[in-house]
Amino acid sequence: MAISVNTLTQEIHEIPNNLDDSAVIEDFLSRHSGKKVVAVQGLGFVGAVMSIVCANAIGEEYAVIGVDLANENTYWKIKSINDGAFPLIADDPKISEFFDNALAKGNFLATYDPVAYQYADIIIVDINLDVQKESDDKGDLKSFDVNLDSFKKAIQSIGENCQDDVLVLVETTVPPGACEQIVKPIIESELAKRDLALDKYRLGHSYERVMPGPDYINSIREFPRVYAGVNQISADAIENFLKTIIDISKCKLTRLEHTNATEMAKVLENSYRAMNIAFVVEWSRFAEEAGVDLYAIVNAIRARPTHANLMYPGIGVGGYCLTKDPLLASWARKSFFGAEFDLEISVSGVSKNDQMPVFAFNRLVEVFGDISNNRVVFLGVSYRGDVGDTRFTPVDTLVRMVRGTGAEIVLHDPFVSYWEEQKCAVRSDLAEIIESNPELIIISAGHSEYKSPEIMQKLLESEPTKIYDTIGLLNYEQIAMLQEKHIVSVLGRGDI
Amino acid sequence: MAISVNTLTQEIHEIPNNLDDSAVIEDFLSRHSGKKVVAVQGLGFVGAVMSIVCANAIGEEYAVIGVDLANENTYWKIKSINDGAFPLIADDPKISEFFDNALAKGNFLATYDPVAYQYADIIIVDINLDVQKESDDKGDLKSFDVNLDSFKKAIQSIGENCQDDVLVLVETTVPPGACEQIVKPIIESELAKRDLALDKYRLGHSYERVMPGPDYINSIREFPRVYAGVNQISADAIENFLKTIIDISKCKLTRLEHTNATEMAKVLENSYRAMNIAFVVEWSRFAEEAGVDLYAIVNAIRARPTHANLMYPGIGVGGYCLTKDPLLASWARKSFFGAEFDLEISVSGVSKNDQMPVFAFNRLVEVFGDISNNRVVFLGVSYRGDVGDTRFTPVDTLVRMVRGTGAEIVLHDPFVSYWEEQKCAVRSDLAEIIESNPELIIISAGHSEYKSPEIMQKLLESEPTKIYDTIGLLNYEQIAMLQEKHIVSVLGRGDI
Repeated sequence: MAISVNTLTQEIHEIPNNLDDSAVIEDFLSRHSGKKVVAVQGLGFVGAVMSIVCANAIGEEYAVIGVDLANENTYWKIKSINDGAFPLIADDPKISEFFDNALAKGNFLATYDPVAYQYADIIIVDINLDVQKESDDKGDLKSFDVNLDSFKKAIQSIGENCQDDVLVLVETTVPPGACEQIVKPIIESELAKRDLALDKYRLGHSYERVMPGPDYINSIREFPRVYAGVNQISADAIENFLKTIIDISKCKLTRLEHTNATEMAKVLENSYRAMNIAFVVEWSRFAEEAGVDLYAIVNAIRARPTHANLMYPGIGVGGYCLTKDPLLASWARKSFFGAEFDLEISVSGVSKNDQMPVFAFNRLVEVFGDISNNRVVFLGVSYRGDVGDTRFTPVDTLVRMVRGTGAEIVLHDPFVSYWEEQKCAVRSDLAEIIESNPELIIISAGHSEYKSPEIMQKLLESEPTKIYDTIGLLNYEQIAMLQEKHIVSVLGRGDI
Repeated sequence: MAISVNTLTQEIHEIPNNLDDSAVIEDFLSRHSGKKVVAVQGLGFVGAVMSIVCANAIGEEYAVIGVDLANENTYWKIKSINDGAFPLIADDPKISEFFDNALAKGNFLATYDPVAYQYADIIIVDINLDVQKESDDKGDLKSFDVNLDSFKKAIQSIGENCQDDVLVLVETTVPPGACEQIVKPIIESELAKRDLALDKYRLGHSYERVMPGPDYINSIREFPRVYAGVNQISADAIENFLKTIIDISKCKLTRLEHTNATEMAKVLENSYRAMNIAFVVEWSRFAEEAGVDLYAIVNAIRARPTHANLMYPGIGVGGYCLTKDPLLASWARKSFFGAEFDLEISVSGVSKNDQMPVFAFNRLVEVFGDISNNRVVFLGVSYRGDVGDTRFTPVDTLVRMVRGTGAEIVLHDPFVSYWEEQKCAVRSDLAEIIESNPELIIISAGHSEYKSPEIMQKLLESEPTKIYDTIGLLNYEQIAMLQEKHIVSVLGRGDI
């Protein structure tokens, strides 16, 4: 008997053997006759939120069906939604507002049965598309590949079920060229198998810029969008749809001429950011060597608008996008367009970023020496401040390296109670942890709690300890106060 | 008999044998008794303009002496200034306004005699500090080195002459660490040789952000400044001086804690820009391969403020700074601070940028095929729009490669009459050149003249030809118009 564990509540669910959910779907739709049906494929960090944005559309009332697989990792999300609990924790109050509103209206159903696509006027593809990376134990990228099998299978399940005049909108970050070279042929081949018209479906790509955190909903609803269709009627259909979910009084829709272009825009956008982070890594080391404060230098430079995107030093890059998108692009360049070379600079940026926690560890040892007998507290395991998202967090590597010295590890994060990737519990009792007088405190995520006056007070009252700020969380005043009692070191600052 | 040719007028000057200019200097200073004396070392693109900014200081009246060497390349500048002609052409009207004002006040003298430093209260170092690059014929950087001999000699000539309470302000872009590890020891050693006090001189670093062009003067006078001194009194003295030449009602002064930090800020600032340009190179190729318009993609992405510094495709990077500053930094990291590794990402950015004209050439051949029998017009040889500056212009490589095919070359630039590096004349009769029906027109610099309605009209009236825009100068409307008659290709646009 297959089960699926709700990672938020630890509740255990049996995965049903009979995956025919058509009665439930038909019953749901019978209560929403006359409404357009939106099916969202994938109920992850994007799809789940996209679903409730669609269920709260602007000037249009959709019946929304979220579709995901009935497997170990995803079945519980379907169950959770239908049981009235949103499957993500986020400190954006709009998340619960939108979800509650959808529950009240009853216009959001989740299912594992792809038969849902039969009823959809619009199908939004929000599934994952992963890159397989091979790296050495220092994060140096040795090779990478993209396996399209599960993506193709997902598109096929749409093609096998959809109406011939459906609008398929791919939001997944795909290798540029995918809509034209992968999605389109699959949809057409499946329509042809069913003897359906091939000139009525509409297909295009519009990438999301979702940012989990306090502006989760608005990062969809009030954020500029780029889109393209495989032809003019597709692009028009996408524009009309986007206007019902995005508040165009607050942001702009930009049409590009080809799905290749929007697909490239997405991975270029993220590669730019990954590259800018990677660029600063080496300068952090240099600043440490030259005994200067890279934060002050970066601030002085960012005063120029032409240099405002310069990044600060840090422990590394995490999350689902920046760690793989440059590789997706490079892979596509060679696989879809026959290029001989990788996007070398962008690829090297990923590798450099993956090595950042190693640099952070090296600096730690350089400054504090042997820590093998220390109890070491990590403040934050998420890759981003005030968000509970541990996917590809750089803290993972640093924790493993510190644990490797023999040091005892204590993990804290107010947004993560169980760390999926490390299969271990994460504490939330910060005051108690500080009171227990650990030998080393590593600030590893930018959660607001760590900057609070209460915690500063706790730290000032605690026994002398070592504090290592890997993300520049502490301000100058806080550092000066802490230095009166503790030994403080900051990544990228050679002056302390 | 040594001579020096004025590159603006082609006038030939004899370099005097007797380099004692003390009588002239004393005479000049006798007319300015009671005024503080500013000596500017170096009369190049920065020093010449810095001199007239000092001669037009805010709330202070300085006697300004510009000092340069009496050699082939620089003697004519000294002569030109003293003869009442500024040694640079720039389309900033404030240049002549400031120079004329200095002439009227008689407070700006140029000399080759380092005895001038004896009288200086403030000495500003604005000399060049070059990097020696070894690259293959495709611009791929093989090795690089920094020879400090002439920089050390220049500092020594200050140390041999200066008063013991002088303020020495280094503006030259130096390898981080230079003020502390090179300048300070030389000054102190020379003062010691003359039995002068070692605790009275002040020394620091503040980098200029001069941008030749229409805002030349304001790029000094109204642009934020970063500075540091080797000690507190030095930093204070620099701040007080900067307040007399920079309009702090319009921009900010930022003090950093160490000259290592300001020196690093300068090269980091330029490395960031060089890196961002290099980053886009590969995506330009990818866009061409995928048949899409990278300009449209970049515009769509730049709508996000976090991505506003993303660059457009182009022919490459020129000028004195971006082509070498990342290397200066990397060299310093190893030479002054014992690092084992280069700043690999920043160094690879320089190499990638140096290869850009090669990519531009490859694309040219890919689109237009054999051009060996063509007459090829280059519109612009400067590295920057509306500026006549050919130092390290990427057009150089492209011209050499096109010439290498056997094609006939015609060069045009409204701001350059003689191209120093290629030792050849540059035409300014654009209308005649277009009327002569060349087979290929390459737009290689962003001068406003090339976008003018008159030139568009000329192009529309000319015989069908090939137009290759390497910098995205033409807008969509202009391209559409030109395409009715000509074959147009744009670097980074695979869609046309």
